[in-house]
Amino acid sequence: MKAAIITIGDEILIGQIVDTNSAFIAKSLDRIGVEVAEMLSISDDKKHILDTFTQLQNKVDVVIVTGGLGPTKDDVTKKTFCKYFDDELVVNPEVLAHVTELIEGFYKRPISQLNKDQALVPSTCTVLPNKVGTAPGMWMKKENTVFISLPGVPYEMKYLVEEEIIPKIVKEYKRPYIIHKTILTYGQGESLVAERIEQWENNLPNFIKLAYLPNPGRVRLRLTARGTDKEVLEAAIEEKVRSLDLIIHDIIVGYEENETLESVVSKMLTKHGKTVSTAESFTGGRVASLLSSVPGASGCFKGSVVSYATEAKINVLGVPEELVDKFSVVSAEVASSMALNVKKLLQTDYGIATTGNAGPSKGDSDAEIGTVFIALATPTEVIVEEFNFGQPREKVVDRATVKSLEILQKEILKIVQ
Amino acid sequence: MKAAIITIGDEILIGQIVDTNSAFIAKSLDRIGVEVAEMLSISDDKKHILDTFTQLQNKVDVVIVTGGLGPTKDDVTKKTFCKYFDDELVVNPEVLAHVTELIEGFYKRPISQLNKDQALVPSTCTVLPNKVGTAPGMWMKKENTVFISLPGVPYEMKYLVEEEIIPKIVKEYKRPYIIHKTILTYGQGESLVAERIEQWENNLPNFIKLAYLPNPGRVRLRLTARGTDKEVLEAAIEEKVRSLDLIIHDIIVGYEENETLESVVSKMLTKHGKTVSTAESFTGGRVASLLSSVPGASGCFKGSVVSYATEAKINVLGVPEELVDKFSVVSAEVASSMALNVKKLLQTDYGIATTGNAGPSKGDSDAEIGTVFIALATPTEVIVEEFNFGQPREKVVDRATVKSLEILQKEILKIVQ
Repeated sequence: MKAAIITIGDEILIGQIVDTNSAFIAKSLDRIGVEVAEMLSISDDKKHILDTFTQLQNKVDVVIVTGGLGPTKDDVTKKTFCKYFDDELVVNPEVLAHVTELIEGFYKRPISQLNKDQALVPSTCTVLPNKVGTAPGMWMKKENTVFISLPGVPYEMKYLVEEEIIPKIVKEYKRPYIIHKTILTYGQGESLVAERIEQWENNLPNFIKLAYLPNPGRVRLRLTARGTDKEVLEAAIEEKVRSLDLIIHDIIVGYEENETLESVVSKMLTKHGKTVSTAESFTGGRVASLLSSVPGASGCFKGSVVSYATEAKINVLGVPEELVDKFSVVSAEVASSMALNVKKLLQTDYGIATTGNAGPSKGDSDAEIGTVFIALATPTEVIVEEFNFGQPREKVVDRATVKSLEILQKEILKIVQ
Repeated sequence: MKAAIITIGDEILIGQIVDTNSAFIAKSLDRIGVEVAEMLSISDDKKHILDTFTQLQNKVDVVIVTGGLGPTKDDVTKKTFCKYFDDELVVNPEVLAHVTELIEGFYKRPISQLNKDQALVPSTCTVLPNKVGTAPGMWMKKENTVFISLPGVPYEMKYLVEEEIIPKIVKEYKRPYIIHKTILTYGQGESLVAERIEQWENNLPNFIKLAYLPNPGRVRLRLTARGTDKEVLEAAIEEKVRSLDLIIHDIIVGYEENETLESVVSKMLTKHGKTVSTAESFTGGRVASLLSSVPGASGCFKGSVVSYATEAKINVLGVPEELVDKFSVVSAEVASSMALNVKKLLQTDYGIATTGNAGPSKGDSDAEIGTVFIALATPTEVIVEEFNFGQPREKVVDRATVKSLEILQKEILKIVQ
């Protein structure tokens, strides 16, 4: 079973926004064994949309379209659906009642014609009710292909995918099994990892594919098995993961599909009853945001002092002014002091600190742009490492954020073992 | 002049990663008047890539391909280019010298065969040197269409687009003028904005298009003018923006192409010599991250106390324990105290505080999931607002983060006027 995902909107084609909807839809389809053959972003232009529909007709089983459903004039999807299905727009009474209730009942505003027009749908479509917004989803079939239209607002799209589309596909279509297993590795580059596992990779059976997904500081390995016998696939993947672990055990940090370094660290800390805090300079709260984004973060994450200004390092964190004067604000000494002091201030077992010069200009220190010090205060000592993450600013912040968590993860592993 | 952007990689089609490269490339092309007709994400499959090339041949002037260039076995782009152009891979001596210098000279590692293979390129291609990585870009022409291949690592891709591709296109192609103007509005929904400006919108000339880009809490309006006379376009856009400002002056916060609420707030504060700090509970440092992400943030942003745990609110921020006991940690009283105390602690003119229950479970308070208090301490008073942002967790955090900055922005406007 194959699907295509189409995003409609000029704002994507001129690069003003990044399309995150397609990835969410793809992941949801992948989980139920639907293969996404293609993703497309096209303009708000009726002809372009119609041409794309024609091109995909009978080539894939499902076409999911997001965007172009809002109340304003630049939205053309509904009219294009009518044209493609030779249909016309009619008022759907259930949708109208829902829109009225939302606008007049919840938002306490008089309902306008633009609001009411959200209840217009092609007369032959199956309406997918949108409880979290005004624009409904639509499901229409032509020959062997179903065309589904969804609003572009991410949480409305997510609601409809999870509550309407996935259950409906599961009920109406037969699908093969697809199993993925992700192995998250930190600390070595793509080439180096590839060299270490070359022989293992050459011995993979035909029905298992391996992909490398490199990111700054980490490489995700993804195994995908496809077939009809779920148990055979699971056993084969399990065996391969076991043999892989024997080869690169030192760099593997997790196996969960949605695992991230922050979720691994958070789980490990919580499991062992340990807590962490952060003192952040140029990372501006990024490490804290990541740690607090993990559900259940309150089990291990106490808080953070974002000491962006030098005076905040001195006044809030209590870094001695002499230390700053003597070694500069971007130094191993100041990083250590920040880590120790935040650990004490927030009464945690671990304290992470970052200080550095991310550019574009030099700021309060003479350190070269890209210079970063990361300190970790553990229950027994302080570790400091120096890096140069080069340029630009966003890369320096990204890499330092990841590296902080990596240093913490390695340290927790030591204590646990 | 038209372009298409192709992203190659199964990891995108299964939704494991979001494609941000295409948006960057699109924005860069748009700036020099190249229209992106289509974006596609397709699999690592040779046949699929070749079919897509054939389909785009002579329909667009430029096809930019990212991904599939790394050193590992799942990368097929180079071989597919050879097939499409009936060419073969040869070692490029300049690329080999660069890769050797990078691996042996900079990383101090012995060079491997996988590393050396990065210097293999189709014999007839124009090499685009990649100074920030090992995989070079490639430029090859067939009939009326140029095919360009770039590595998928974002900062390598960005480097090649900015340093090689854009200058080469500017030199070799004639392009029309495209002018965009973005108007950033906060605080009213898409329908309401559309109703207010309906008449203005109906009077737009044919060569100016309007698009609505809604996001939680804000709507961006984008005007696009296309034509051959730059001065005519600029004058027309300017006139339209002026007349729009007369209609919705109360909700417009900025006009810069890359303007965000955080950059607007940061600029306003810096301009008037005012400073800000944040005290964040469930937003976990998100407001601080946004404020610190603006270049030159040190002019107005001093720092933040992320008091995720209740004890951090008491011990670090100095929120009285009685207040927490009496009103609960999610309350207007605690939010006010956090805002006042962080303002004092970090010696700033403004202090923003967030406390709330973002779910999925109830945590340290009995407040309904979605309940949020945002407080702003100004030089003269404390303002507190209560919201319910519903579910899920990420939406509550997103909306509260945006709302905090919106409250601050409205307040600065008042003082300035």
